Amino acid sequence: MSKLDDIVSLCKRRGFVFPGSEVYGGFAGTWDFGPLGVILKKKIMDEWWSFFVEKRDDMYGVDAAILMNPRIWVASGHTATFADPLVECKECKSRFRADKIADGINESVSSEEFWDLHVKCPVCGKENWGPIRKFNMMFSTHVGAVLPEDTGDLAEKSIAYLRPETAQGIFVNYKNVVDTFYPSLPFGLAQQGKAFRNEISPRDFILRDRECSQMEIEYFVKPDEWETNFEMLRGLQHEFLETVMGLGARKIHEYEVPAEDRAHYSKRTIDFMFDYPNGSEELMGLAYRTDFDLDNIQRESGKSMEYRDKNTGETFVPHVIEPSIGVERLFLAVLSNVYTEDEINGEKRVVLKLPENLAPYRFCVSPLLKNKPELVEKAQEVYKILREKYGNVTWDDSGNIGKRYRKQDEIGTPKCVVIDFDTLSDNTVTVRDRDTTEQVRVLISEL
Amino acid sequence: MSKLDDIVSLCKRRGFVFPGSEVYGGFAGTWDFGPLGVILKKKIMDEWWSFFVEKRDDMYGVDAAILMNPRIWVASGHTATFADPLVECKECKSRFRADKIADGINESVSSEEFWDLHVKCPVCGKENWGPIRKFNMMFSTHVGAVLPEDTGDLAEKSIAYLRPETAQGIFVNYKNVVDTFYPSLPFGLAQQGKAFRNEISPRDFILRDRECSQMEIEYFVKPDEWETNFEMLRGLQHEFLETVMGLGARKIHEYEVPAEDRAHYSKRTIDFMFDYPNGSEELMGLAYRTDFDLDNIQRESGKSMEYRDKNTGETFVPHVIEPSIGVERLFLAVLSNVYTEDEINGEKRVVLKLPENLAPYRFCVSPLLKNKPELVEKAQEVYKILREKYGNVTWDDSGNIGKRYRKQDEIGTPKCVVIDFDTLSDNTVTVRDRDTTEQVRVLISEL
Repeated sequence: MSKLDDIVSLCKRRGFVFPGSEVYGGFAGTWDFGPLGVILKKKIMDEWWSFFVEKRDDMYGVDAAILMNPRIWVASGHTATFADPLVECKECKSRFRADKIADGINESVSSEEFWDLHVKCPVCGKENWGPIRKFNMMFSTHVGAVLPEDTGDLAEKSIAYLRPETAQGIFVNYKNVVDTFYPSLPFGLAQQGKAFRNEISPRDFILRDRECSQMEIEYFVKPDEWETNFEMLRGLQHEFLETVMGLGARKIHEYEVPAEDRAHYSKRTIDFMFDYPNGSEELMGLAYRTDFDLDNIQRESGKSMEYRDKNTGETFVPHVIEPSIGVERLFLAVLSNVYTEDEINGEKRVVLKLPENLAPYRFCVSPLLKNKPELVEKAQEVYKILREKYGNVTWDDSGNIGKRYRKQDEIGTPKCVVIDFDTLSDNTVTVRDRDTTEQVRVLISEL
Repeated sequence: MSKLDDIVSLCKRRGFVFPGSEVYGGFAGTWDFGPLGVILKKKIMDEWWSFFVEKRDDMYGVDAAILMNPRIWVASGHTATFADPLVECKECKSRFRADKIADGINESVSSEEFWDLHVKCPVCGKENWGPIRKFNMMFSTHVGAVLPEDTGDLAEKSIAYLRPETAQGIFVNYKNVVDTFYPSLPFGLAQQGKAFRNEISPRDFILRDRECSQMEIEYFVKPDEWETNFEMLRGLQHEFLETVMGLGARKIHEYEVPAEDRAHYSKRTIDFMFDYPNGSEELMGLAYRTDFDLDNIQRESGKSMEYRDKNTGETFVPHVIEPSIGVERLFLAVLSNVYTEDEINGEKRVVLKLPENLAPYRFCVSPLLKNKPELVEKAQEVYKILREKYGNVTWDDSGNIGKRYRKQDEIGTPKCVVIDFDTLSDNTVTVRDRDTTEQVRVLISEL
């Protein structure tokens, strides 16, 4: 088993992440967060929100609908170009993303280029390919009173899309926020929310799923100040990833995306790559989007997106720098970073060395023996005190104490507090440390 | 203007809620939350999560994908029955929900019953109706490598739906949670997330939109204990709405839904109605769903949903009680509850009397005059102290002090702290109360 398999297995075994719709045999590219996954995901999202929005004076939050006016995707270029190259095996009818079953080609590969590579079908082994077709990754639906049997204009005009990125939900609200809050430049609009991409081949656990949560900022700047703000945001990203998420700086690599590989709207992009168990993968992106999006909106909507400087009176369309991160990618980076197998007194164990701010529970409280009512009662008392004080505290009286430690290690609980017979006489408890497994006696009042 | 119009206007003016995709002329039934709306919505959702999940030992969180295996909706009955009666005017081709343009009929009205009512078309005034057709409110899409030109089996088998309720995302994870956490009955699974309904006529601001956030609990109980648990959850709902959300008890009315109006799965339902500005509307529901859902999953998936009692060894399918609330409905209830117009010294004002736990900002700090650097500097100092201490503090140096008070009243800030020349000599500030408008001098250290 690879380390990624080990993490997938732990996630399922301990209730962090289950396959989506699992009871019905699953549903490719979807994942459900279980009780501990919900806690960890919420902590990650709340830490991001606190760091980038609540603690700053230059950030404003928005939360736009997932279903948006389809003209947005015309303006942004998604309707025309948000597509992968799809190829079908004429023998077995299997379909593939062409650039994922052949080496050395990219998304804009032509039919001829692909045919010339003489790729064998990964399913039936034959070589009989149809043409490359552009497969748009936006999920489409119909909005309004349109029936499945409706055709023509009625059906056509009702088509809408699940947003493939949260960014446009921010751009359409730029003018609203400017007209309501009169922010000075530079300022950012931040959003957390779902985005959907119909990946031809979802894979790598939650790294490439069809539904993901994004955390994005569009940071609006004066055109000639983009470079200093780009550097400022670049530094903030490192600080967040390393200090707040506890990711090792050595596992994060900046990749300066060359012009030919950048998205069509970007004049500079740095991908922050993370060393995942299966290799280096994009964790987040920092892109200088210029005035591409606001310009598109001006053209398509006919409304001015100009900003008027309060001091100089000068008007212009701001430029935009976008730090963007996927929650699931960050979630997996955090888990990969802390997943550890070690040996304690000759016994192998799995431990999640989560930082205190991210651990689902800060303490686990348990009675040494569950069939001694006086211990259970005292332990409940301690449990209530700690819950009152810290909130995220769990209770465990299952199995024996060794099993409980192993379980708490696997879910990353930093400290286990055990109530035994000595507690009844001297009000001290055993506090066992997750990382060192060392145990100390501490007064309840000093916990 | 009605009071609802006043609230819609305030929401837009002050950045709580904007029409969705507004820059493109909007998109019916969608709404975007602005900077203050995001804060209020997050506070409402966090309070619910804290009250129903974090502070309790019997609740577990889940967070399932929005795109689910379509067999779920066959099992739940949504594919067959989650439909409204659609009728088309043959003259002008306008389409309506039949039971919304005629009195005294319900969702199961037949074509003949409708024709007999001789309704005139609300658009063209003529009476020439087509047949009643069942309009399924689930948004459908295609998942996987299927092209728009694909037909037949390939297209058919790729159809999936945006979930019309979050509940099924919980039910499909029931077995996962039982097998991972071995919870004792009764226990609840809680989820917050988006749900989508293709309403024929979205209306009433965020009350009936096409995309909403739900907060639901499925509470699993022994079949013969459903009534005591139903009463327990009924009490909790009142406590949450009245104590945590601050909604006046007199504005909440329980409506015991008669058998013929209940959803097909329910043996008892209480709708918690709230006195909105436009009349009494459902705010939340409490439904006894029996073993309907787990039974459906057993039948459709072939997997056992039985629970084994740890003490008695007895096995059975648990019954379910579901408290369910829409975030947007609660958001509007909170705003309606606190929106006040009063008169202060002969001047009319609008004030949101939000409870302290929900107000976007707890304090607003500002210098009496913005062109006096010494006042601005001192005010910034106080601002930083309060931010460090309370987090949600805002800064305002726009316009004159009267205008700032009016703005802070409209967004519900409980206290305005003003720094003036006296502050420089004696370190006291003026603290102005939102509700009484009274001003007192307080030492900075005592804030």
